[in-house]
Amino acid sequence: MTENPRSLILNHMVQYSRKLDASFGALADPTRRGILERLGRSDAAISELADSFDMTLTGIKKHVQLLEDAGLVTTEKVGRVRHCTLGPRRLDQETAWIAEYQRMLEARFNRLEEFLERTRGRQ
Amino acid sequence: MTENPRSLILNHMVQYSRKLDASFGALADPTRRGILERLGRSDAAISELADSFDMTLTGIKKHVQLLEDAGLVTTEKVGRVRHCTLGPRRLDQETAWIAEYQRMLEARFNRLEEFLERTRGRQ
Repeated sequence: MTENPRSLILNHMVQYSRKLDASFGALADPTRRGILERLGRSDAAISELADSFDMTLTGIKKHVQLLEDAGLVTTEKVGRVRHCTLGPRRLDQETAWIAEYQRMLEARFNRLEEFLERTRGRQ
Repeated sequence: MTENPRSLILNHMVQYSRKLDASFGALADPTRRGILERLGRSDAAISELADSFDMTLTGIKKHVQLLEDAGLVTTEKVGRVRHCTLGPRRLDQETAWIAEYQRMLEARFNRLEEFLERTRGRQ
């Protein structure tokens, strides 16, 4: 089977973009960020998370599912208990995206500064 | 007027949390990330953005509004044209939040590794 290199690159870009959608979306909620902070201290069962956040099991499960889809939480069922742990995703691509935004923002300020310098020079 | 320091701290935390909701939510969409990347190259009018992304003015305006609410885009109306520029927010708090997540993830792996070392030592 021969693969079209262009479609491989496109597929890679689509996958990358979907990952960012899922992870930034998962982080855009105070309860979900709270769950990650809680799991950062120690692993926890879904029921413990529901207690900590004073939510129903159904409510907390929805949040955990979104976190799991984004690769920020791993769950494992042992008997009747579902255990939650942090990870495995490190969010390196998200950090890189934000760093690139900051680089662009700085470049914009620099261009603006240069423009002002030149304008001042002319007076 | 005396302010309760506890309510000031709480208010600060709520504001901080809302900022993260808005910014991570704004970044959780490929068109909105695309608009930021486009504005990173140069400022643009709303109509230019609509052309670039092959969207209606109404559609692109909704995305720009969300970016503006999150402080990632500034718009200014000059005559009949609305100009968009990048910033002013640098997303430093978002970077700090992700860095803390990565620190927690690493600490978890270290604890796991220590546990495995101890378990192996016992055999």
